[in-house]
Amino acid sequence: MDLKVRFHELLKKEKAYEYAMQIIGWDSQTEAPRDCFPHRAEMMGILSGELFRIASGKEMQETVYGLYDKKDALDDITSREIRKAKKQLDKIVKIPENEYVEYMSLLQMAQRIWEDAKANNDYESFKGTLGKIIEYTKKFVSYYGEGKHPYDVLLDDYEDGMTMKDYDEFFNVLKQELVPFVRQILAAKDNHDYRFMEEKYDIDAQKKFSDYLMDVMCFNRNRGLLKQSVHPFTWGTSPEDVRLTTRYIENMVFSNVFSVIHELGHATYEQQIDSKWNDTYLTGGTSMGIHESQSRFYENIIGRSQEFWNTHYPKMKSLFPEQLKNVDAELAHRAVNRVEASLIRVEADELTYPLHIMLRYEIERMIMTGQTNVDELPALWNDKMEEYLGIRPETDSEGVLQDVHWSSGMIGYFPTYALGSAYAAQFYNAMNKDFNVLEAVKNNDMGKINAWLKEKIHQYGSSKDPKELLLSVTGEPFNPKYYINYLKDKYSKLYL
Amino acid sequence: MDLKVRFHELLKKEKAYEYAMQIIGWDSQTEAPRDCFPHRAEMMGILSGELFRIASGKEMQETVYGLYDKKDALDDITSREIRKAKKQLDKIVKIPENEYVEYMSLLQMAQRIWEDAKANNDYESFKGTLGKIIEYTKKFVSYYGEGKHPYDVLLDDYEDGMTMKDYDEFFNVLKQELVPFVRQILAAKDNHDYRFMEEKYDIDAQKKFSDYLMDVMCFNRNRGLLKQSVHPFTWGTSPEDVRLTTRYIENMVFSNVFSVIHELGHATYEQQIDSKWNDTYLTGGTSMGIHESQSRFYENIIGRSQEFWNTHYPKMKSLFPEQLKNVDAELAHRAVNRVEASLIRVEADELTYPLHIMLRYEIERMIMTGQTNVDELPALWNDKMEEYLGIRPETDSEGVLQDVHWSSGMIGYFPTYALGSAYAAQFYNAMNKDFNVLEAVKNNDMGKINAWLKEKIHQYGSSKDPKELLLSVTGEPFNPKYYINYLKDKYSKLYL
Repeated sequence: MDLKVRFHELLKKEKAYEYAMQIIGWDSQTEAPRDCFPHRAEMMGILSGELFRIASGKEMQETVYGLYDKKDALDDITSREIRKAKKQLDKIVKIPENEYVEYMSLLQMAQRIWEDAKANNDYESFKGTLGKIIEYTKKFVSYYGEGKHPYDVLLDDYEDGMTMKDYDEFFNVLKQELVPFVRQILAAKDNHDYRFMEEKYDIDAQKKFSDYLMDVMCFNRNRGLLKQSVHPFTWGTSPEDVRLTTRYIENMVFSNVFSVIHELGHATYEQQIDSKWNDTYLTGGTSMGIHESQSRFYENIIGRSQEFWNTHYPKMKSLFPEQLKNVDAELAHRAVNRVEASLIRVEADELTYPLHIMLRYEIERMIMTGQTNVDELPALWNDKMEEYLGIRPETDSEGVLQDVHWSSGMIGYFPTYALGSAYAAQFYNAMNKDFNVLEAVKNNDMGKINAWLKEKIHQYGSSKDPKELLLSVTGEPFNPKYYINYLKDKYSKLYL
Repeated sequence: MDLKVRFHELLKKEKAYEYAMQIIGWDSQTEAPRDCFPHRAEMMGILSGELFRIASGKEMQETVYGLYDKKDALDDITSREIRKAKKQLDKIVKIPENEYVEYMSLLQMAQRIWEDAKANNDYESFKGTLGKIIEYTKKFVSYYGEGKHPYDVLLDDYEDGMTMKDYDEFFNVLKQELVPFVRQILAAKDNHDYRFMEEKYDIDAQKKFSDYLMDVMCFNRNRGLLKQSVHPFTWGTSPEDVRLTTRYIENMVFSNVFSVIHELGHATYEQQIDSKWNDTYLTGGTSMGIHESQSRFYENIIGRSQEFWNTHYPKMKSLFPEQLKNVDAELAHRAVNRVEASLIRVEADELTYPLHIMLRYEIERMIMTGQTNVDELPALWNDKMEEYLGIRPETDSEGVLQDVHWSSGMIGYFPTYALGSAYAAQFYNAMNKDFNVLEAVKNNDMGKINAWLKEKIHQYGSSKDPKELLLSVTGEPFNPKYYINYLKDKYSKLYL
C-alpha cells in the first residue's frame, strides 16, 4: 500500500484511541462519580498503552520517517502533516524509554509536592524537585532539539516558530511601554462603588445568563454544549463536537460571565475549523497563542467593551433586578475593567495581566540560559513583582509557588498567554479595516464577527502556522504596537 | 505464561475497549450534540474493529478453548468463567463472517423498515424483513447450539438455563390462574377520581422528588448518578460507577416516579456486586430475569405498596400542594395501581403486564417451532389479545408492530420480563421469612432490604446462575405460585 495511505490509516486509528480517551476525560471532569477513578485509571492505563504502541510503533516510524525522507516530493498539505508528525514522533522515539518513565513518575510526585509546598508556603520542599524537572527538560530537548538552544526548542513546542529573539522583542516593548503606563493608571483615582459585584447572585439566574451569552455569541448547539466543572475549559474532538464548561460562584457573578465568554472564544474557533482536516495533524487550533488570541478577543476586546455592556446589560439587569438596581451599563462596564495591582496571575485584570507573564518569561529565560538557579527564584520573583507592579508578595505561595505549570513540566508555555492578547489586538486592527467591529457588537451581530474569523483564521485549523496566519490576515508580521495602543487607548479613556 | 493468566490479561484488555465504548455510549444517550454522530460512528467503527480482533483472535481462541479442554481440572470459579467465555466465543467464531455481516446490515435496515411500518400501520412492508431475521436466527443457532432446539438455545441465551419446558409450565399457570382473575378485576367497579394524575407538575419539583427517592432507596452517590435521557435506563461499568436515567413529562408525574424507582432496582443490584468480579465474566447481574426481578421488586412490590405511599406521599404532596390538595395517600396508592385492559405493553399495569408477555412468548414459540408464519402473525396477535385481555387492536401498530425487539433480532428476550416479576415475588416471600418487609418500608429503612439483597443475591454478580440463586435464596426451584398469590392478594384487596 502507498506510504501516504498507510500513514493516514494509522493516524486515524491513533485518533480513535485519543477520541475514546478524550470522551472519558470529559466525563471525568464533568460528572464521573468519585469512586470510579481507581478502576478508570486501570482501564485508561490499558488504552494509553495500546495508543502508545500505535503512535511509536514500527509501522508509524516506517511511514512517518519514510515520508519525511521524501518530503520535498510531497504536496504542500502532506508535507506539513509529515513535519508535524515527525516532530511528535521524534519526541517519542528519541527520548530513551527508561528516562521518560522516570520523568513521568517524577512529575506525578512533583504535583503532590508542589501542592503541599504551596499550601504550606514551603518553597524549600519543592526546590529540589523543580531542579530535577528542569534538568530532565534540558536533557530531553537535547535529544530531539537538533542543536537549537533548549529554550528556543521549548518555545517552539508551545508556539510554532517562536524563539527567544521574538519574545525578547515583544516583552521589551511591553516593559518600556506598559510598565510606566500601568503605574500611571494605578495612581489614578477611582471613587466608584463596586460593592454590587460581590453580592449574592442566584445560580439558576446565572445559568440563564450563560444561555443568553451562548446565543449572543452564536454558539452552534448542534455541535456542542455548555456544562459545569471545577475549572472552566474548552474541549473538542472535531468541529462537530466542541464543549465548554463554566463554574458558578454565588458572590462572584462576573466569574461565570467572563469564563463563558472566554471559553466561547476557544469553542467558536474549534467549531469553525473546516471538517476536512478531521483526524489529521492539521485539525484543531494552530497554536496556544492563536487559540488564546481568540478567547481573549472574545473576553476582553468584545466582552469588556462599552458597546457590549450597553447592548447586553439590560438582560443581566432583568435577571438580577435587586442586586443591580443602582447600577447602569456604564458602571457595569467600569466594574469589569477595574485595574488593580495584584499578586495572583489568574485573578489579574486585562491591563496588568501581561506583566505577570513577562515576569515568568524572564525567569524561565534566565533558568534555561543558566543565569539563575532554583535557589534564587523566590527573591527574583518578588523583586520583579515589585519592579513591574509595585507590590511584593509576602509569601512564596503568593509568589513563585502560585502556578501549576512548572510542576507539570510546562516550561515555555507561559509566554503564549501574553502573545494571545497581542495577536488579538493585531487581528482586531485588521478586522476594523473591513468593518466597524464595535458597531457590530452594538448591533448584536456576532455572526458578522464570527464569519470574518472563520474566513480569515478558523477554517484553516492547523494548516497554517501562527506566523503565516498573522501575515496573511493582517498584512504584516507580529507587531506588539497594536496591543500597546489598544490597552493605552482603552484604559486612558477609563482612568485618565 | 500460564494459560489462565494469559486469558485474564486478554480479557482485561477486551474490557478496556468495552469500557471506552460504554462511556461513549453513555455520552451519546445523555448529552452528545446532534452533529457529532457521523464522526463518532467512524471512531466507534475503528474501536469496535480492534475489540473484535481481540475478542475473536487467535490468542483468545487458544486460551479459551485451551482452558475449556481441561475445564474439569479448573477451580470452580475459573471453570464458570471459561464456560461463559466459550459460549460467547462460539457465537463469534462459529458464525461465518460474511453471514454475520449480511445479518448486521439486515438489522440496520430492519430498524428503519419497522419504524416506518409502525408509523404507517403497514405490516406487509415489514413482513419479509421479519421473515429473514427469523431465518438468520435459526441458521446462526444451528451453528453454535450444539443440537438443541433453536428456541431453547435462544431462551438460554437470554436467561441461563431456561427452556421451553420451563416457560411452558410458567405460562400455563399464568393462563389458568391469572386470565380469569384479570377478567374479574376488570369487571369490578372503580369510581375514584384519578384526574389529578394528568395535571401539570413542575419539572424542577419533579427533579427534587427524584433526588428524594434516590436517598430513600439509599443510592450511593459516590458510585453513580442520575441524569436524563429519552428512554430511562441503567448503565454501569463496575460497581463503582453505576448510573441511571429518567425522563420528565409535565402531565405524567408518575412516569418519572416509577422510572426512577425501577431503574434504582437495577442500579442497586449493580452497585452491590462484589468488586472482586470486576472485568471478569462473573461481574454484572447474572441474567435478564434476575435483573428484572430487582427492578420490578423495587418498582412494584416496594414502590407501589400502601406502606411506601403512607411514608413518602407527604413529601410528594409538599412539592405539589396545588395538584394534590384533594388527594390522600390512599388515593395515591390506588391511582398507581389502577388496572386497565390496554393494548400497549409498555403502558400496561402490574397485573395485566404478564399477559402481554405470555402472548409474545406463545407467538415466538409457534414461530420457532414452525407452528405459524409471518403471514399469520397479525391475526394471531389480535386473537390472543382478545382471548387474554378482552380487547382487540384496531391496527397492527397497536398490535404486532408495537415492539422494537423482533426488528432488532431479539427473539427469546420477552419472557424474561414476566419471569423477573415472578422471581421477585418468590424472593419477596423468602425475605419476609427473615423480617417484615413492608414494616421496613413503612419505617423508611431501605437499608435493611438492600442489605438482605446484597447478602443473598447482589454480591454474587454472575458467579451464580439464576436457577442456583433461586434455590439457594428461597430454598426451592422457581415456583410461579408466589407471583400468582402476590397478585391475587394485592388486587383482591384493592378491587374486590
